[in-house]
Amino acid sequence: MSHWISLNGSLVPDDDARISPYDRGFTLADGVFETMRAHGTEILWLESHIQRLQQGAKILGIHLWGDEIVLSSIVELLGRAEYERSAVRLTVTRGPSRQRGLWPPGEPVVPTVMVTASELPAMVPQRLVIARSTRRNQHSPLSRIKSLAYGDNLLARREALERDATDALMLNGYGNIACTTIGNIFFKLDERWTTPPLGDGVLPGLARDRLISLLNAVEYSLAEVLLPEVTAAFISNSLGCAPVTHIEGRQLKGDVDESNLLAIFA
Amino acid sequence: MSHWISLNGSLVPDDDARISPYDRGFTLADGVFETMRAHGTEILWLESHIQRLQQGAKILGIHLWGDEIVLSSIVELLGRAEYERSAVRLTVTRGPSRQRGLWPPGEPVVPTVMVTASELPAMVPQRLVIARSTRRNQHSPLSRIKSLAYGDNLLARREALERDATDALMLNGYGNIACTTIGNIFFKLDERWTTPPLGDGVLPGLARDRLISLLNAVEYSLAEVLLPEVTAAFISNSLGCAPVTHIEGRQLKGDVDESNLLAIFA
Repeated sequence: MSHWISLNGSLVPDDDARISPYDRGFTLADGVFETMRAHGTEILWLESHIQRLQQGAKILGIHLWGDEIVLSSIVELLGRAEYERSAVRLTVTRGPSRQRGLWPPGEPVVPTVMVTASELPAMVPQRLVIARSTRRNQHSPLSRIKSLAYGDNLLARREALERDATDALMLNGYGNIACTTIGNIFFKLDERWTTPPLGDGVLPGLARDRLISLLNAVEYSLAEVLLPEVTAAFISNSLGCAPVTHIEGRQLKGDVDESNLLAIFA
Repeated sequence: MSHWISLNGSLVPDDDARISPYDRGFTLADGVFETMRAHGTEILWLESHIQRLQQGAKILGIHLWGDEIVLSSIVELLGRAEYERSAVRLTVTRGPSRQRGLWPPGEPVVPTVMVTASELPAMVPQRLVIARSTRRNQHSPLSRIKSLAYGDNLLARREALERDATDALMLNGYGNIACTTIGNIFFKLDERWTTPPLGDGVLPGLARDRLISLLNAVEYSLAEVLLPEVTAAFISNSLGCAPVTHIEGRQLKGDVDESNLLAIFA
């Protein structure tokens, strides 16, 4: 069965949709994306997502005027998909360029804008391990935007599954915990909710922002050695939240009031 | 004018070549590539390139049996292109998967193999600066393979051009110099050629290997503070070598015997 996707503002069956072999998103991960939660045809936090996407694009030097992202085509896509709740991915790359080499990309390059939708995945309780295969690069601005360069997260995720966990915590170069491969992390320490600061190589998650406010959480750099002090934890991203039940095999006894957290997605 | 490219073993005009919007190379930088030098239809160090590509693919968990890379189609491509000397890019991604999320990718996923060729670019004498916008992640195995996740190199390269340099030296998290955005770096210190060790977040360049042997060079971690001790330098990659004339505005007085270095590409 063919699905519809939105490509450069037009709805097309995915079997017909063509990305150029010269697209710099394909050849060099030269692009950004957002993953958004939708209820019917309504996208949650849409304005904040577009803003974050534009900030990421700016860091890569991709100039977006705003009219490249055709909201009506996203709404049309969601209308056809007919999911009650969905995960919408908006991808923007610098676009196709025949010119080889890193930079400059050659002119004119027109950004590629792609939108796909799928049914909202369930977020299961998390058994986490600490990734040993790679680390988060807190020196890189890419650690604070949703760049297409997702290789380290892929490595850590694969390691987690091989170690019979649901996901991995990623350390940064300092040995502080930054995030999981798919979202931000919150830790309860001394009855207080904390989350790693952006400077530790952390994506400024939209759910993260809202949960900091909701829980009156503090930004706190957590070194790996302090993990035994953690009494409860949960992960968050723009699609949802899920409690962490285990870290490196240790069961967390503290409760996470999930329904309270999920209120931000209402 | 349309060019030919090789896609999954077949020669196709680039205007007709289609990458799936679900290709994980496009959505997640889930792939590797090689850049190779060719004289006519003959590719230099072909066996070593294929070997390095397979090692990179293995690190990403992409299983290549070898027959995905159809050498006859590369030779045919080079025959049609008719360049005397060319730069050949071989890209391998995990392939298209409709399933969202990082991992597992869903089954079966068939790798995408793309080959493009362009005229061999001239390598000009280099005026280098030290990238301040980002750093190399020596903790990541991706720093030692040619992953598609090229975002940090793009950032550093763009910074270099904005600062009126030809390219940037990339520091790693320790503050040691790792490489430039397009190749390895060699430094002359106390009349001895040195190059950063792989553990500093360095790609095991094929030219690098051969130049270490040629020059009897030693692997040496160079902290940024030691740069004033450097009397000469050059960069290398699989396409060629070029002397470094300036680092952060300081002119290097030492000579680089370029014709000696270029002998490895003969």
